[in-house]
Amino acid sequence: METVSTARAFGGVQGVYRHASAATGTDMTFSVFVPAHAAGARLPVVWYLSGLTCSHANVTDKGEYRRACAELGLIFVAPDTSPRGASVADDSAYDMGQGAGFYVDATQAPWAPHFRMWRYVTEELPALVAEQFPVDPARQAVTGHSMGGHGALTIGLTYPQRYRSVSAFAPIVAPSLVPWGEKALGGYLGPDRSAWRRHDAVALIEDGARVPALLVDQGDADPFLAEQLRPELLKDACASASIDLTLRLQPGYDHSYNFVSTFMADHLAWHAERLR
Amino acid sequence: METVSTARAFGGVQGVYRHASAATGTDMTFSVFVPAHAAGARLPVVWYLSGLTCSHANVTDKGEYRRACAELGLIFVAPDTSPRGASVADDSAYDMGQGAGFYVDATQAPWAPHFRMWRYVTEELPALVAEQFPVDPARQAVTGHSMGGHGALTIGLTYPQRYRSVSAFAPIVAPSLVPWGEKALGGYLGPDRSAWRRHDAVALIEDGARVPALLVDQGDADPFLAEQLRPELLKDACASASIDLTLRLQPGYDHSYNFVSTFMADHLAWHAERLR
Repeated sequence: METVSTARAFGGVQGVYRHASAATGTDMTFSVFVPAHAAGARLPVVWYLSGLTCSHANVTDKGEYRRACAELGLIFVAPDTSPRGASVADDSAYDMGQGAGFYVDATQAPWAPHFRMWRYVTEELPALVAEQFPVDPARQAVTGHSMGGHGALTIGLTYPQRYRSVSAFAPIVAPSLVPWGEKALGGYLGPDRSAWRRHDAVALIEDGARVPALLVDQGDADPFLAEQLRPELLKDACASASIDLTLRLQPGYDHSYNFVSTFMADHLAWHAERLR
Repeated sequence: METVSTARAFGGVQGVYRHASAATGTDMTFSVFVPAHAAGARLPVVWYLSGLTCSHANVTDKGEYRRACAELGLIFVAPDTSPRGASVADDSAYDMGQGAGFYVDATQAPWAPHFRMWRYVTEELPALVAEQFPVDPARQAVTGHSMGGHGALTIGLTYPQRYRSVSAFAPIVAPSLVPWGEKALGGYLGPDRSAWRRHDAVALIEDGARVPALLVDQGDADPFLAEQLRPELLKDACASASIDLTLRLQPGYDHSYNFVSTFMADHLAWHAERLR
């Protein structure tokens, strides 16, 4: 692992790191904030998965998580959203290919060789982070924004023992039923929709996946709300499954980091409570 | 004035605006955060002047001021750092020309026609902001970072009645004595150093300018500390002039927005107290 940069921030260290990923077959960059802590302490960790077009940098610059992480004693990790590079398949659209990995392991050409973000985010990067940073692997939480909210929900629902707390900002809750998801899951996983269900939070819940609780914030002025995000589908699925969903429709908020940063501290406090 | 964008953030509105500036003879872009407030209320305003290479966007994205401004009821305005455009003189160096206006009214070719940032920031933009936003012109504060810290100190020292509170992050305190300042003031104002003194905070204090108090934060791992920033010169000048300077050397902090954002809430609380 190579250190790209480190800087003191809010009493801790905000770093950016790069490593050669076996999962994706590319170099991958990610950021980690480690708050001030007692020597030898192992801290709970919050994974933040980013949305379409983003890398680790968007939330690192605009997410406003450091003050709350410093106060709550949380490590914050932000992976990239896809493999990148000249040798990696891409698409001219913003919602497919580089910057749009959708947190799946692709099975279809031309994506299969490198687009293995599920394995990267759930196996390889956690192992690296546990080795290189003072995290307590027994206390992990996962959150994310938009496509990354989809990632957080599907990962949290799949590994409820590992991620003790799950939340999302304006997530894609049912990718099988919306244009972004149909394109991406079709492209990465192929036309057989049965293979999509384990990458669809609503379908996972229908198929029996359970978590104790979910926190979801959603701006009601989000231009993607009605067509792509559809939080009411998650609400219905959680109601049927008796999952304790806190879904907050935030009046006037859009899909940007103005929205995410406003509610970031709430999510971190919610995770910290569950990671104690 | 044209609205470039607005978004709800922390209960208020973060906007970006553009207008045709008479001072610079160009279009100028700036950002304003207006917190939630009672109908008809006029709020105190904090002016934030940015550093070399920056526009309004850096602090708007990375400054983490919105939560504190919302809590304290402060409007936050971030102007650009220079005129810009194909018809505006420039220099290939990062520390001269576009992005490096140094908050002076240039008298020298090729800068004089457009580089009138002093007049823009102290006259034209305050008048526009007072007209377009619910500010109380009797309650203004000024702060800034690096070159913008220089701007904040020189503007605050020149107009102590107008700016009731002055602070800076890693400011250039004595541009006449450091490479960045000698180049810029020489370029914009010409070789006669007597013309530089009213754009040099330390010289202004030596020449009799006074403010009740100053707050300055400075990272001790800032790579520009010893050669360009030299806060000890401000400390000596304030001691001789009986100006109540709070100068905090922050251990381990660099010159970036990781530093600025960490101490932003402290500065805003300090200003809010003085603007009550």
